Amino acid sequence: MAICSAHTTTSLHSPCTTVSNTGFRQKRVIFFTSNRRSGRRHGGGRTFHVSCSVDKPVVIGLAADSGCGKSTFMRRLTSVFGGAAEPPKGGNPDSNTLISDTTTVICLDDYHSLDRTGRKEKGVTALDPRANNFDLMYEQVKAIKEGQAIEKPIYNHVTGLLDPPELIQPPKIFVIEGLHPMFDERVRDLLDFSIYLDISDEVKFAWKIQRDMAERGHSLESIKASIEARKPDFDAYIDPQKQYADAVIEVLPTQLIPDDNEGKVLRVKLIQKEGVEKFNPVYLFDEGSSISWVPCGRKLTCSYPGIKFAYGPDTYFGHEVSVLEMDGQFDRLDELIYVESHLSNLSTKFYGEVTQQMLKHADFPGSNNGTGLFQTIIGLKIRDLYEQIIAERAGTPAEAAKV
Amino acid sequence: MAICSAHTTTSLHSPCTTVSNTGFRQKRVIFFTSNRRSGRRHGGGRTFHVSCSVDKPVVIGLAADSGCGKSTFMRRLTSVFGGAAEPPKGGNPDSNTLISDTTTVICLDDYHSLDRTGRKEKGVTALDPRANNFDLMYEQVKAIKEGQAIEKPIYNHVTGLLDPPELIQPPKIFVIEGLHPMFDERVRDLLDFSIYLDISDEVKFAWKIQRDMAERGHSLESIKASIEARKPDFDAYIDPQKQYADAVIEVLPTQLIPDDNEGKVLRVKLIQKEGVEKFNPVYLFDEGSSISWVPCGRKLTCSYPGIKFAYGPDTYFGHEVSVLEMDGQFDRLDELIYVESHLSNLSTKFYGEVTQQMLKHADFPGSNNGTGLFQTIIGLKIRDLYEQIIAERAGTPAEAAKV
Repeated sequence: MAICSAHTTTSLHSPCTTVSNTGFRQKRVIFFTSNRRSGRRHGGGRTFHVSCSVDKPVVIGLAADSGCGKSTFMRRLTSVFGGAAEPPKGGNPDSNTLISDTTTVICLDDYHSLDRTGRKEKGVTALDPRANNFDLMYEQVKAIKEGQAIEKPIYNHVTGLLDPPELIQPPKIFVIEGLHPMFDERVRDLLDFSIYLDISDEVKFAWKIQRDMAERGHSLESIKASIEARKPDFDAYIDPQKQYADAVIEVLPTQLIPDDNEGKVLRVKLIQKEGVEKFNPVYLFDEGSSISWVPCGRKLTCSYPGIKFAYGPDTYFGHEVSVLEMDGQFDRLDELIYVESHLSNLSTKFYGEVTQQMLKHADFPGSNNGTGLFQTIIGLKIRDLYEQIIAERAGTPAEAAKV
Repeated sequence: MAICSAHTTTSLHSPCTTVSNTGFRQKRVIFFTSNRRSGRRHGGGRTFHVSCSVDKPVVIGLAADSGCGKSTFMRRLTSVFGGAAEPPKGGNPDSNTLISDTTTVICLDDYHSLDRTGRKEKGVTALDPRANNFDLMYEQVKAIKEGQAIEKPIYNHVTGLLDPPELIQPPKIFVIEGLHPMFDERVRDLLDFSIYLDISDEVKFAWKIQRDMAERGHSLESIKASIEARKPDFDAYIDPQKQYADAVIEVLPTQLIPDDNEGKVLRVKLIQKEGVEKFNPVYLFDEGSSISWVPCGRKLTCSYPGIKFAYGPDTYFGHEVSVLEMDGQFDRLDELIYVESHLSNLSTKFYGEVTQQMLKHADFPGSNNGTGLFQTIIGLKIRDLYEQIIAERAGTPAEAAKV
């Protein structure tokens, strides 16, 4: 394919001059500074114009609350493309960015306009749009999408301060993950695909108890209070974004164990919007009908409480969607491959690819349940979307064989 | 195939001398009279020994209460083999027997040892084993199974009397249908396959109301009383036979319409015993797992109240079974073929054979619901069983391609 492919470099000092291993060569670079919306300590936010006929990145948005498995998700996504995701080499050790051969993931916390002190002074949370610079977010995502490098601010989660910016070059796939990828309409419109990780209150609470009480010694009361304090802004600014998502991964308590509140066994839904270009929802057995399936039976035996799948059409915020649901967890490889073999439209390149990906990262959180399964599937879907876009731009149909 | 094939003639006067169109020739016929267990007006029950290496009939038992769709079932069964079933030509016009090219169906009421008056005198119902001659039933089914013709009594449902016997020659498939095909252990052991038609009390009541009240002007009270009067003997002598059946068709009220008691929309279960030689249960999507399926969705639209299938393993009287369930009814051809295309192990010979059979008899009761569907499927299963037995006897594998 004669496609000019963008390359991401992690060094601030050699932007746009490297030749990538995919044959990308910078023709002309214009630096300029735009939309300097005041980090408190720096004037980050430059965009580097690149005029070569670069292959423009596919832009993906991933929205979720902090600490809800976004980075695991991103590691699963980059793994689908074959490479490992790492922080930029030689840059700020507190950078929130993850870079692999194909994919660059940036954290939208980097677009905080107020640092920790600033938020405290103004009495706003990080969830509040007033603590975030959507103009800069828009300018920079737009620039990347047009194949231009950017100088993106860094919000330092350790110090709570805004650090000097880092240079981000346009990758093949650019992922913006964080609290507000679909909040601003202009940013939203730049997304080729969007995902919302929706952790139910019950599960969020169970997880927080597990982490903050068992591991950090917080009291139950203080955990409840911290959740309650966050809830109004979360409901006002984060939660409404899910209506715009092309895919929602919803994490709920299991229904296989009566009155379970441990949050260990999970029921996970993959809500897939219908009619999204280049995205064919995964289905179980019979596309468009309603199915429930307990694969544990004569051919497959599972330990308590078993595994249950459901699939069917539904509506979600007025959109037609197809919902795939998994309750329970995998104990053994044969359970995973058995389930994979009965799902259709997975966009795998060979039989068992989902299972292989899940096993490769068996140590990641959620690898034995629907969160890992659906994150892996979304990874494959994004790869498929990317390949369709590339093929379309090259004027050839996608060559990858779909299983 | 060099198989000597039995032929059924309907004439009392030319037994065992015809040459069938399958090449069967009678070699020797010995008449004898055995086990004359007193019909009140005749000494029927002779067995005709035929010593030729006749292809011995496959014997099927079908148990059900009177008037529960047995004759419809039998017409569906014989239709699967291509021929129409008719009463014996030139014989007793009140004969209960149905004969087609391949199949002879006899009604076990013919083994009543007491006629209507006799039962009244002794205060027993037709359901009571004391009103039935199981020794003769056993002798004659055994004789047929060994390829011998029989002189079977006739119970005249019109007069309530026992009429002179009719000659029954061994057919390819011999079906005994009635109240007690699996009651007597000796008879039961002769069956190659057995079916129980289990109509739930609610549906039986709704049907009886429909027929006896709407069509015959009976009062609700008298209908209730007649059902109640029959129930003790039914529960004691008929119902327990279902534990022996290889397949049970259970007819229940729909669950798609809340509190429905019209008995028009039905939920029907096909309970298939596992481990029965030459009988591979039908399944939906994934053999041995538990599935529920509402085919009405994006690809197939159905009118209210829709159609719902369920499939899964279960136990039934301590036996491992696979249960296929259909709730609702078909309105259109596309619904029927869509459902057929998703069922496996149907033992059809071509794509759409179930649908074709159902359409061919669209006027039969139950052709738009699970009773017709499952009766048709059982018909195909019996054909398959028959062909396997024939192939085994001939030392060749069954040639029929299974879809």
